[in-house]
Amino acid sequence: MNTNTPLQGLWCATLSPLDARGALDAARLASHAQRLFASGVDGIAPFGTTGEGQSFSVAERRAGLDALLAAGVAPTRVLAATGCAALPDAIELTRHALSAGCVGALVLPPFFFKDVTDEGIYAAYAKLIDDVGDDRLRLYLYHIPQVSGVGLSVAMVSRLAAAYPAIVAGVKDSSGSFDNSRALVAALPRLSIFVGHEPHLPQLRKLGGAGTICGIANLYPRLMRRLYDSSLDAKPGGELPLIESVIAALMRFPIFGALKSLQAELSGDESWRALRAPLLPLSAADARALDQAIAAAGIDPKRDGA
Amino acid sequence: MNTNTPLQGLWCATLSPLDARGALDAARLASHAQRLFASGVDGIAPFGTTGEGQSFSVAERRAGLDALLAAGVAPTRVLAATGCAALPDAIELTRHALSAGCVGALVLPPFFFKDVTDEGIYAAYAKLIDDVGDDRLRLYLYHIPQVSGVGLSVAMVSRLAAAYPAIVAGVKDSSGSFDNSRALVAALPRLSIFVGHEPHLPQLRKLGGAGTICGIANLYPRLMRRLYDSSLDAKPGGELPLIESVIAALMRFPIFGALKSLQAELSGDESWRALRAPLLPLSAADARALDQAIAAAGIDPKRDGA
Repeated sequence: MNTNTPLQGLWCATLSPLDARGALDAARLASHAQRLFASGVDGIAPFGTTGEGQSFSVAERRAGLDALLAAGVAPTRVLAATGCAALPDAIELTRHALSAGCVGALVLPPFFFKDVTDEGIYAAYAKLIDDVGDDRLRLYLYHIPQVSGVGLSVAMVSRLAAAYPAIVAGVKDSSGSFDNSRALVAALPRLSIFVGHEPHLPQLRKLGGAGTICGIANLYPRLMRRLYDSSLDAKPGGELPLIESVIAALMRFPIFGALKSLQAELSGDESWRALRAPLLPLSAADARALDQAIAAAGIDPKRDGA
Repeated sequence: MNTNTPLQGLWCATLSPLDARGALDAARLASHAQRLFASGVDGIAPFGTTGEGQSFSVAERRAGLDALLAAGVAPTRVLAATGCAALPDAIELTRHALSAGCVGALVLPPFFFKDVTDEGIYAAYAKLIDDVGDDRLRLYLYHIPQVSGVGLSVAMVSRLAAAYPAIVAGVKDSSGSFDNSRALVAALPRLSIFVGHEPHLPQLRKLGGAGTICGIANLYPRLMRRLYDSSLDAKPGGELPLIESVIAALMRFPIFGALKSLQAELSGDESWRALRAPLLPLSAADARALDQAIAAAGIDPKRDGA
């Protein structure tokens, strides 16, 4: 892993394209990544929540990452999401990402058991770090309590970062709470704090935050690039209201199906529509309604799609 | 799998003993199972929630089941919990349990994504059944929404049972809602409905329910056997208030640590106390307080421990 530069910038939580049999289509994921890079995205985080990572087996995630890198995606542009319900699986995937040269690992806490304590979550991450046992590890903690059911308190993150200062490198805060992101930046100025909720990016960067790891970058990478580049400007550009409109339109539908439906529309590649159960593709009626909502927001989808 | 007799009776959701390195101690699990059988337990369900199943990798769960059977536990007395966050992993473990001759597979829905639809959960189970592709499969659906975050509606279970009448064999209802258990028995009289909450056993059996798959059977198998055997009696025995007292005492502490602490106390084997992070052993002070609460309930722990 790149042990020198803290990560920052515009990172895409990549959607996972499936083939006709429902298997990960790593070749399409690689070409998607290359289009994103050409559109100004700094790096990708495959197998996160948006990428349906938890719907793939450990073997599929290993093979998918290998295929992505074999197709020419630079591992220095890959932050591999390696969290799993079972810690031994997360350890295996994190070791694998490290040996593949990925710039870091984005790791959920074990998420099956609820009402776990900060002490227990700390012990889980500490075991992961100790068992991976490699000073090159750069660990990004993944906070998405509304999905995982297991949140990461600022106190727990601070304790872990103090115990493993060379390893704990950042947090992806996908809680949607800007108060939480602000508290992370304030408590942990050395860490790279990323937001998942795209509209929070300008505020976060003004506080010294690192950037975003987000889903909208799949769909509108250039728009997200302009939002990132203008984040520190005194006068906000027009990107923020457009992005807010896109999110509002998507949120009217089951979100994972909606993201893939819009991706299919933007790319002209219908095979993007497929998801793995229990997630489902948007119905045809919902897909049409989503397109209409996007058009009504005044966005020309073809202009910025990747 | 045993394709003839619907399961019923007293089944134990076995705790998973760990060795000094934190690995599953399959030899101790096997001897625990044999003690349970000798105490009147009909069968075991390893790697469920009480057994910290989601803290073990697919490889560990496969090897653990193999070792359990190799140690002489009859597969006809094993209902293997094979659910996973990722459907391919659940399919692999279910196939493995089937090939090992287990009497059935107890399967959680994929549980990472929340707010999934009945349609999506149905699609996930249907894919599991279709991909396992073996008429001998006997599937027990595992409903524990307060932990998994993904509940199984009676309507979804009914639809699945209608579509796969020879495969869908039962439900373990660990919701703690007797209204839900009652609705399952009423809607699905052909299925074996088990409760997880031990005090509901007598009511359930009076309605025609199958029995219980429960955690307290690890600790007080004979007490649970007497509760089961007297469930249909007009006059209730004294077991129910004792079991309710045990549960009330345990619930004052983090439940998984408390179960293992009491197991250590009852068996005289301190190594039972260990759990995998993010779950933690009870503190020494809490362990003492739990013992006192059990004693205060008038239970002689040594008399009924297994």
